[in-house]
Amino acid sequence: MSRSDGRPERSRPTLEEVAAAAGVSRGTASRVVNGSHRVSDATRASVQEVVHRLGYVPNAAARSLVTRRAESVAFIVAETESRVFHEPFFGRLLRGASQGLAATGLQLVLVMAWTAGERSRVERYVHNGHVDGVLLSSLHGDDPLPERLAASGRPVVQAGRPWTPLRGVDYVDSDNVGGARTATEYLLRQGRRRIATIAGPQDMVPGVDRLTGYRAALRGSRAVPSGLVAQGDFSRESGERAMEELLARNPDVDAVLAASDLMALGALRVLRASGRRVPEDVAVIGYDDSEVARNAEPALTSVCQDMEQMGREMVRLLVGRLEAAPGGAGGQAGGDGAGAPAPSPPLVLPTELVVRASA
Amino acid sequence: MSRSDGRPERSRPTLEEVAAAAGVSRGTASRVVNGSHRVSDATRASVQEVVHRLGYVPNAAARSLVTRRAESVAFIVAETESRVFHEPFFGRLLRGASQGLAATGLQLVLVMAWTAGERSRVERYVHNGHVDGVLLSSLHGDDPLPERLAASGRPVVQAGRPWTPLRGVDYVDSDNVGGARTATEYLLRQGRRRIATIAGPQDMVPGVDRLTGYRAALRGSRAVPSGLVAQGDFSRESGERAMEELLARNPDVDAVLAASDLMALGALRVLRASGRRVPEDVAVIGYDDSEVARNAEPALTSVCQDMEQMGREMVRLLVGRLEAAPGGAGGQAGGDGAGAPAPSPPLVLPTELVVRASA
Repeated sequence: MSRSDGRPERSRPTLEEVAAAAGVSRGTASRVVNGSHRVSDATRASVQEVVHRLGYVPNAAARSLVTRRAESVAFIVAETESRVFHEPFFGRLLRGASQGLAATGLQLVLVMAWTAGERSRVERYVHNGHVDGVLLSSLHGDDPLPERLAASGRPVVQAGRPWTPLRGVDYVDSDNVGGARTATEYLLRQGRRRIATIAGPQDMVPGVDRLTGYRAALRGSRAVPSGLVAQGDFSRESGERAMEELLARNPDVDAVLAASDLMALGALRVLRASGRRVPEDVAVIGYDDSEVARNAEPALTSVCQDMEQMGREMVRLLVGRLEAAPGGAGGQAGGDGAGAPAPSPPLVLPTELVVRASA
Repeated sequence: MSRSDGRPERSRPTLEEVAAAAGVSRGTASRVVNGSHRVSDATRASVQEVVHRLGYVPNAAARSLVTRRAESVAFIVAETESRVFHEPFFGRLLRGASQGLAATGLQLVLVMAWTAGERSRVERYVHNGHVDGVLLSSLHGDDPLPERLAASGRPVVQAGRPWTPLRGVDYVDSDNVGGARTATEYLLRQGRRRIATIAGPQDMVPGVDRLTGYRAALRGSRAVPSGLVAQGDFSRESGERAMEELLARNPDVDAVLAASDLMALGALRVLRASGRRVPEDVAVIGYDDSEVARNAEPALTSVCQDMEQMGREMVRLLVGRLEAAPGGAGGQAGGDGAGAPAPSPPLVLPTELVVRASA
């Protein structure tokens, strides 16, 4: 299918021209174009502006991307709108993906798909060829959506490890086991001996992995009384309920690792209501290092995942798959995997414990 | 262009069949299909699921919508990702739009466009025919984006009144003047006499209108000392700075109307740090009635705008424009407005003051 949109072919600008127009070095321009994060936001914005103004495309492979017929990548979030907009890490994930796509000319479009109706609609949308590739986030357990989307023949990259390995679906994971283990070991080093956890949903990989990390840290220590695991669904309300449950079972609990900042916030509220001081009586650690953690009183110690980096890495895998696929075939490719590229090796991003007042 | 996707033409299901399959009355099914909000979330979800499973389309005009070639409507938010994901009202606006579109078969895709590069990319995306219509939100002053998008020939509906009337752009407004006036009058009735305001950005219509409402309420009262207006950018940090400024100029201020809940939150923090009690010494009212308002301590009295309703009304206007346009012409229509439908009359949605502990 030839293009006939009437736009004249102009000579392609070079990276040197982009750097000059943006007033930065060639190396800096290159870092922005390749999605590196070692660039300030202001510099990134001004280089990206020049990239788009001049119509710069970085190399032959990326150049072929902009002639794909859909000209877009969907970021599909299998959640409700209200959930997505209460979880600031979606914003960071999306910003990372957006930065990663900046130099490709592909439009990032966000789709929320929670109800069965919304899911079947987005499946139809992808199968009908309206996007060139799919980024996916926030899936419960053995959700069939990723494989059904991969059956469209378009590359699919998931945020977080799938529940079971999926044909045609690459992923970028975060080291949830390591993050929870590090946080629990920190509590042990502080001398805490009755360390409880408010685990996340056990039909979600991060819920399971963070509980595994907590258990791994306590294994072999003498700090493992029973009844110290309660479960929530990552929401603040569920954190309140879980903390009440833990206090009822173990009034002498002296530390809590919550698998999300929102659940930690709920725990703080219940601990305060019970007359306990944080961190003097009970240390509290959250997970996600969100705004919520910074704004809590006391400010929450929390496990930090670099969600922007995850977004950028997801795009890197996706663009690699797009470059490997025959150009322009996105609309018609069969989905049974014959001749599909080998899956990328799993990428697991490290976490970091950010220490504040609560533990 | 004829469809050749190999799907057989099935007989169209009726509304009665949808109602029966969902286990609800025909009237309830009709309310869901028409985007009424007098239906519980659970009922809405189950009817929408049946609508999609059976492939129900409500009438001939709406049926023509699903054959448009882009099969989608873009919700373009002219903001950064981090801003969007800290403003829960975007989630509610989007949910309303999603509910409104549920019965049309059109996919809602969200696009963030803040930098010049992102803006030119989404313009290209819309002009290249990848969406059938555009919903727009969060525009500063005389942003050229809405008119440039309208020049694509696709219908454009904006959330909130444009800075100046725009050719080809319909809008749904919220009564920002009335909301701020009602809140200020409430403070007067409570006996407050030194009522300050933390205004929003004066290059945004809601910023200007809310300040107008505050001034209108105080006009003619004896409660208008000078130096009681400070300005922020709707963020919490800007609310802190503004509150510090107000206290420095008027230590005896006894009430504050903030033009956003986040700015009110910043004000609460500064008032507490200064040793003032809320509401005993200083009453505080926010704007937006967000989660932030409910979770603040003390819980914030706030002006409520029904953002879900706004999202639904925006879709109603957009679908009206799509039905009026020649079917399937979305991809090629010229944009100079010759023969364009007359603009819809402006729709202004009412607000409500939700009284909690802070005032």
